[in-house]
Amino acid sequence: SIAFTDSLISRAVGPTINIYALEGYSFGSKDAITTTKERKSTLEIRRRERFERQGMRRTVEAVLIVHQHRHPHVLLLQLPSGHFELPGGCLNPGETELEGLKRKVTKKLSTNEVFGPKWEHGELLCMWWRPGFDTEMWPYQVPHITKPKECKKLFVVPLPQRCGFTLPKNIKLVAVPLFELYDNGRHYGPIISSIPQMLGRFNLSYL
Amino acid sequence: SIAFTDSLISRAVGPTINIYALEGYSFGSKDAITTTKERKSTLEIRRRERFERQGMRRTVEAVLIVHQHRHPHVLLLQLPSGHFELPGGCLNPGETELEGLKRKVTKKLSTNEVFGPKWEHGELLCMWWRPGFDTEMWPYQVPHITKPKECKKLFVVPLPQRCGFTLPKNIKLVAVPLFELYDNGRHYGPIISSIPQMLGRFNLSYL
Ligand SMILES: [Zn+2]
Ligand SMILES: [Zn+2]
Ligand SMILES: [Zn+2]
Ligand SMILES: [Zn+2]
Repeated sequence: SIAFTDSLISRAVGPTINIYALEGYSFGSKDAITTTKERKSTLEIRRRERFERQGMRRTVEAVLIVHQHRHPHVLLLQLPSGHFELPGGCLNPGETELEGLKRKVTKKLSTNEVFGPKWEHGELLCMWWRPGFDTEMWPYQVPHITKPKECKKLFVVPLPQRCGFTLPKNIKLVAVPLFELYDNGRHYGPIISSIPQMLGRFNLSYL
Repeated sequence: SIAFTDSLISRAVGPTINIYALEGYSFGSKDAITTTKERKSTLEIRRRERFERQGMRRTVEAVLIVHQHRHPHVLLLQLPSGHFELPGGCLNPGETELEGLKRKVTKKLSTNEVFGPKWEHGELLCMWWRPGFDTEMWPYQVPHITKPKECKKLFVVPLPQRCGFTLPKNIKLVAVPLFELYDNGRHYGPIISSIPQMLGRFNLSYL
C-alpha cells in the first residue's frame, strides 16, 4: 500500500482517476470474429482512398485502468496475431469524439455499462499524428506536413466499480501492469508503451 | 506551417501553450562554475543521509519551449560531461513547488525575466518517482515501496516573448527539437526523451 502524510502530497497533482479492483469486472465470450491482417501495401491504398473521400482520419482510443492489490493495470485487446490494441476506432464524419468513443468502446467490449448514467468525462492523454499514408505515428505534428493523414487521441475512460465485458472467442482482454508497458515498445508499440508517462500527472486513487 | 480548418480541430484539445521564436531570446555567458561528477556510491550515501534528515526529496524541473520556424524545441542545459539536464532542482523544506521552481530556474539561467509580472502558471507534465537510493526513476509509483526516496515533477513554464539568459561558460543552453528527443533515451535519458509524449495533449501555438 502507498501511504503519504498530507504534508508530503503537493498541491500540484493532476486530476484524480478512481481505479477499482479487477474483481469487480466479469469477462464473457461470444462467437469469434474474422480478423483480417491486411498487407502493408493494401493498408496504404485504403488510407489514401479514405483520405481523399473524408480528409484526415480521426481515431479515438480508451485507456481503461483497473487495479490488482493497488497495482495499476491497463486493459488491452490481444488479437489472434498476438498484437495488442486499445479499445477504440475511427470516427464517422461529423461524429464527436465522445460519441465515437462511446460507440466504439461499447461495441468492442460488448458492454452497455461503461458509459452509464454516472459516467464522468475522460481526460485527453495524448494526440498522435500520422504524417503520411505509409508511416508511423508521432506524438507531435511533423514539420512541414500541412495535411496529416490521421490524428489519434487517447482518453482515460473512468470505469464504473463493476461491469461486464464480452469478447469474441479469438480476442483476449488482458490487464497489463504499467511496469510491463513502460519502455517496452518492442512488445506494445510506441503508443501503448508510453501510457505510463501519459498517466504520470494523475493522482491514481485505488478504491 | 500547420493549417487546419476549424471543423477539423476537435474540441477536446488540451490547454494551449504559447510558444515564441528563438530570436526573441538572448544568451550571455559568465564565469565557469565547478561541476563535480560524483561517484555513484557517494551519490547514494548523500541521498540516504538527506532522506534521513528531510524525508522524500522533492525536485522540480522546467520544460521551456521555443520555436524556430514553427518547429518546437526544448531548452536544455548541457553540462561539461556532455549530459543534458532540465533547469530546476531540489526544493528546500517547506518551500512550495512554485517558489522552488522560480528560485531554481532564475538561478540556473541567471534571469529575472522568466517569471515576470505577466507570468501564468505552468502545467504539471509528469511525476517521476525514485523507489530506492541507488535506482532509476519511474513515471509511476513502484509497487510495495511505501516510502519513495524522491519525487520529481516536470512543469511546462511559459516563457515571455523576449528575455535574456546568462550561463556559466562551461554550461551550454541548447534548443533541442522534439523529434530529436523522441524515443532517444540513449542520448537524453528516460525523462527528457519522454517530453514529446508528455506534451502530446497540448495545443502548441506558435507566435
Ligand atoms: Zn523546417
Ligand atoms: Zn513482455
Ligand atoms: Zn504486489
Ligand atoms: Zn542525438
